[in-house]
Amino acid sequence: MGDVNRATTAAARAPKQDRSRATRQRLLEAAVACLAEHGWAGSTVAVVAERAGVSRGAAQHHFPTREDLFTAAVEHVAEERSTALRELFPQGAAGDRRAVVEEIVTLFTGPVFRAALALWVAASNEEQLRGRVTELEARVGRETHRTAVQLLDADESRPGVRETVQGLLDMARGLGLANLLSDDTARRARVVAQWAALIDAALGAPEDA
Amino acid sequence: MGDVNRATTAAARAPKQDRSRATRQRLLEAAVACLAEHGWAGSTVAVVAERAGVSRGAAQHHFPTREDLFTAAVEHVAEERSTALRELFPQGAAGDRRAVVEEIVTLFTGPVFRAALALWVAASNEEQLRGRVTELEARVGRETHRTAVQLLDADESRPGVRETVQGLLDMARGLGLANLLSDDTARRARVVAQWAALIDAALGAPEDA
Repeated sequence: MGDVNRATTAAARAPKQDRSRATRQRLLEAAVACLAEHGWAGSTVAVVAERAGVSRGAAQHHFPTREDLFTAAVEHVAEERSTALRELFPQGAAGDRRAVVEEIVTLFTGPVFRAALALWVAASNEEQLRGRVTELEARVGRETHRTAVQLLDADESRPGVRETVQGLLDMARGLGLANLLSDDTARRARVVAQWAALIDAALGAPEDA
Repeated sequence: MGDVNRATTAAARAPKQDRSRATRQRLLEAAVACLAEHGWAGSTVAVVAERAGVSRGAAQHHFPTREDLFTAAVEHVAEERSTALRELFPQGAAGDRRAVVEEIVTLFTGPVFRAALALWVAASNEEQLRGRVTELEARVGRETHRTAVQLLDADESRPGVRETVQGLLDMARGLGLANLLSDDTARRARVVAQWAALIDAALGAPEDA
């Protein structure tokens, strides 16, 4: 009997957990879209809850404060993007560093970057946000750097290689900014082609070549 | 008599124009400081007028709308910075491109960049600002590019040179972002040293060498 009860409870619990996870996911995605479209000033828990089709109470159950919701949202999508990037090159990308550079730059030119930027700029003016966003940014930045090094087959023990990759990520961020107000696709493609070649030369032969 | 009257009027007008110019200047500088510190949401004509020690009426005489004031302010300081950059290298900088790269990056890491960024991000969410800031950004961007090409002694008729310089300016913007929430000075110095070397090699011998 005890076993049967436990099994029933577990079965009832599983769909509830699924629903809770799905609600959380919808809130995170709505939060990112909201930040990207309306900026920090226009992004509140209430607006996001409505957009996600979730009651305000349920939203606050998952994310007690506005800061909780939006930092969790940016971290969540940044992780998703990073995973997607690695999955694009399951064998690494030896021999096609240009494709890797293109994909890295793409990470910084969509709505996720706009959302992160809105949070970043708000954090620069709001004490309550600053500490959390700084920490989040450092974590996401380290992860992106690690992924870039791996996909580019870059040997960081060689002098200058680490800084070459860092500069690439800085450039990608700058290209994201340049795409904020107008469509910068054509110019960006030319810059990326040129810098992919410079970076390929600077990194030298892939480690496993 | 007519001549005397004209002379008197001109004499009275000159100091008045000077005062008006000084007021305008104070407003522009206060507007940039305000944007950098408080972001777009915290930046109004009234706040800037008080900071500049100017009546609100006088501020509105110079800048009828909030958009007028802040776009004029960012343009004004961007021009000042660009002039200052050229004056640092009155003979061009043949032979010391690293110094030029360092100074260009410095343009993007101070309060002026923070102010421009706040305006930029606000414009991405506010229709009223978007057109004007896009136009301003294009104008300032072209001017910065022209200055960079000249100071780096870059020959844009060579394939890839234009894109190399553009990528440098994108990287500089990205470094500005990286410096927004925490002091990135030490890391930035290493990235700039490495990228200055890459750029120097990519640009080839200076035109006049």
